[in-house]
Amino acid sequence: MITKALTQNEHQLAHRIHTLHQQAGTHPTNILHLLERIPEINLKIDACFLSNPYATDLVMDYLKRDLLQQPHRFRALLERYPSQNHILGSILSKILDLPAEMLFAGNGAAEIIHAVLHNFAQQRAMIILPTFSAFYEFLPLHVQALFHTLDKQDHFNLDLTRLLKDIQQRKPDTLVLINPNNPNGGYCDRQNIESLLDALQSLPLIIIDESFIHFSYEHQQFDVYHSAINLVEKYKNLIIIKSLSKDFGVAGLRAGFAVMHPKRVQQLVERGYLWNVSGLAEWFLRLLAQEEFQQRYEPIRQHYIQHTGHFFKQLGNLEPIFKTYPSKANFILLEILNGMSAWDLTALLLIRHGIYVRNCDDKKGLESGEFVRIAARTKEENQQVLYALNGLYSKR
Amino acid sequence: MITKALTQNEHQLAHRIHTLHQQAGTHPTNILHLLERIPEINLKIDACFLSNPYATDLVMDYLKRDLLQQPHRFRALLERYPSQNHILGSILSKILDLPAEMLFAGNGAAEIIHAVLHNFAQQRAMIILPTFSAFYEFLPLHVQALFHTLDKQDHFNLDLTRLLKDIQQRKPDTLVLINPNNPNGGYCDRQNIESLLDALQSLPLIIIDESFIHFSYEHQQFDVYHSAINLVEKYKNLIIIKSLSKDFGVAGLRAGFAVMHPKRVQQLVERGYLWNVSGLAEWFLRLLAQEEFQQRYEPIRQHYIQHTGHFFKQLGNLEPIFKTYPSKANFILLEILNGMSAWDLTALLLIRHGIYVRNCDDKKGLESGEFVRIAARTKEENQQVLYALNGLYSKR
Repeated sequence: MITKALTQNEHQLAHRIHTLHQQAGTHPTNILHLLERIPEINLKIDACFLSNPYATDLVMDYLKRDLLQQPHRFRALLERYPSQNHILGSILSKILDLPAEMLFAGNGAAEIIHAVLHNFAQQRAMIILPTFSAFYEFLPLHVQALFHTLDKQDHFNLDLTRLLKDIQQRKPDTLVLINPNNPNGGYCDRQNIESLLDALQSLPLIIIDESFIHFSYEHQQFDVYHSAINLVEKYKNLIIIKSLSKDFGVAGLRAGFAVMHPKRVQQLVERGYLWNVSGLAEWFLRLLAQEEFQQRYEPIRQHYIQHTGHFFKQLGNLEPIFKTYPSKANFILLEILNGMSAWDLTALLLIRHGIYVRNCDDKKGLESGEFVRIAARTKEENQQVLYALNGLYSKR
Repeated sequence: MITKALTQNEHQLAHRIHTLHQQAGTHPTNILHLLERIPEINLKIDACFLSNPYATDLVMDYLKRDLLQQPHRFRALLERYPSQNHILGSILSKILDLPAEMLFAGNGAAEIIHAVLHNFAQQRAMIILPTFSAFYEFLPLHVQALFHTLDKQDHFNLDLTRLLKDIQQRKPDTLVLINPNNPNGGYCDRQNIESLLDALQSLPLIIIDESFIHFSYEHQQFDVYHSAINLVEKYKNLIIIKSLSKDFGVAGLRAGFAVMHPKRVQQLVERGYLWNVSGLAEWFLRLLAQEEFQQRYEPIRQHYIQHTGHFFKQLGNLEPIFKTYPSKANFILLEILNGMSAWDLTALLLIRHGIYVRNCDDKKGLESGEFVRIAARTKEENQQVLYALNGLYSKR
């Protein structure tokens, strides 16, 4: 146990971090809150946080030009009600090249997950583990969660045959899939997604969360990613949910969208999702609809994927201390193989190196306590994470 | 009918406005959307919009200082997840001097209305008409709306005896009250609110929407308003909902809060209201908690109430063309007595004077089509509204 090497002071800090972690429940402690409560921590890198920091830089460029330097425009965003959802749908329509009636704007993906589960799940929802905990936490009380656990021996890959068999046996009305999956980054390719949808046409509801799809690729071609949004017209039981926090690095805005059958969009709007997106988030959606922005964003996206892949490869070289799992998201799951716990590693990295990683021991399916999730940040930050992990290794 | 005096061109514009109004359903057409679609309109005053514009000026002062002039701080708000609801609860606790466990932060009052109705209303909700339509539109399908209609002959005053009798007869489990009421501004004083709560202690749920309480007063003393938030500890069936859009003029932020029994706050958070408030709205909540801000805000609030009262008095002098109803909110309900329809008046004011008022003919209880709601804006804008209405009058 490496924590034996911690000083008494470090131990006390570790204890305080742990307490905050427990208070935060199944979501990582907000880092600003953590720093407020434990000012002794000198945070350098938040590798818990899943976003492309280069995309944030780009959005800030436009924000400065459009709003910070034009306070009267900012005032209008502050003072006025944002547009109603159907107007935001028409903005999304320009971005996604899909009919506005199929598009729903949300106050972050979290709101959409909540809305979709509460309005459209019936009685039994199959959820693939490990997963983003909101998918079972936000389930309405009358909907039962049926867990389908990915096989660690099979690198947490999604085995379609096994999944379909499980669905046939346990008869859920709803299936939830995250692609690439969070927290392991496992990717289900376009062909498999289509096979799955073909096989499950009689299932009332299939939810695919594509919040990390912008980071995925097939055949090492980074210029294309394969979103299933254009399959919603064909498969009427399909709902795609997409956070915009990850790819564009704007979690503070609370912006996300969903693609679903027009009837469902209408139902959500009628049932109260009307002014759910803030004025600033609306500004951002309008920014996404600008071709110039997209042209500047695309190389940033590809570049980030490229150096993220490089980072993951280097992490892979840390075996046999760690095992890495295949990821096409902007994070990677590490299993600790030398007996150290995820909690010890997390505390150690934070206290000694100012690096915050995601201890996964609160995640269903990963409770054994040897898993941490590490996000790809800037190139330089990734190198520092590698350096710190290497340091642990060489000390043994 | 005054619209007979409209030119053909004006008639066409009126028709286009009407179409947009119908598309917007039971909420007024977003003014920016209206201007986008009908650029011929030269909007000067949005007297449909219910906010204190002087408060917006004040918030902008702080926004410039804290964020527009410090882009790195804005970047943090943009990039990072906002705090979870329990942290926002502790900020609200400083503002409201109530225990954090009783406080729930919402993505605008609209989200809170939705959340409260969907989580706590049981089968029968009594709603007082006229009202803010969200209260019946957002009701879950299994909850029946029982309407209790205020008496126009009694100036839409709330008659407690009649209300209590109606509750006894129709046995709702939920009562919704807006105080001051929207759209007529009728006010139920502190003593009556307490009598009502005393009489209804066995009712499972009483919702009081106090979104306009900051504009109310008793005995012409503008320095005190009587919120019922401190009654929630005594009456466990009480939930207070409060928009912050109106008093502070920041509808674009989507910020509101509710005060309720700690168990209910916990239930909402557990059921998915977790990151529902944006980073910018969190900045605003932290601003409200600053004493300096409150000290600067208070005279602005009182001054606005004062000149709003003066405006309402002047509108009252427009009788016998219009009848005004008593209001302690920042808007007033006008009944048109000369045979002109609310729709005609709305179109005429918008086309000829660039003044946007709220045609209430879509509001349950006011469908007769002779009611408009006029918001108090700046002193100068109020004078222009008076001038325009006077002009109509003298032309006859």
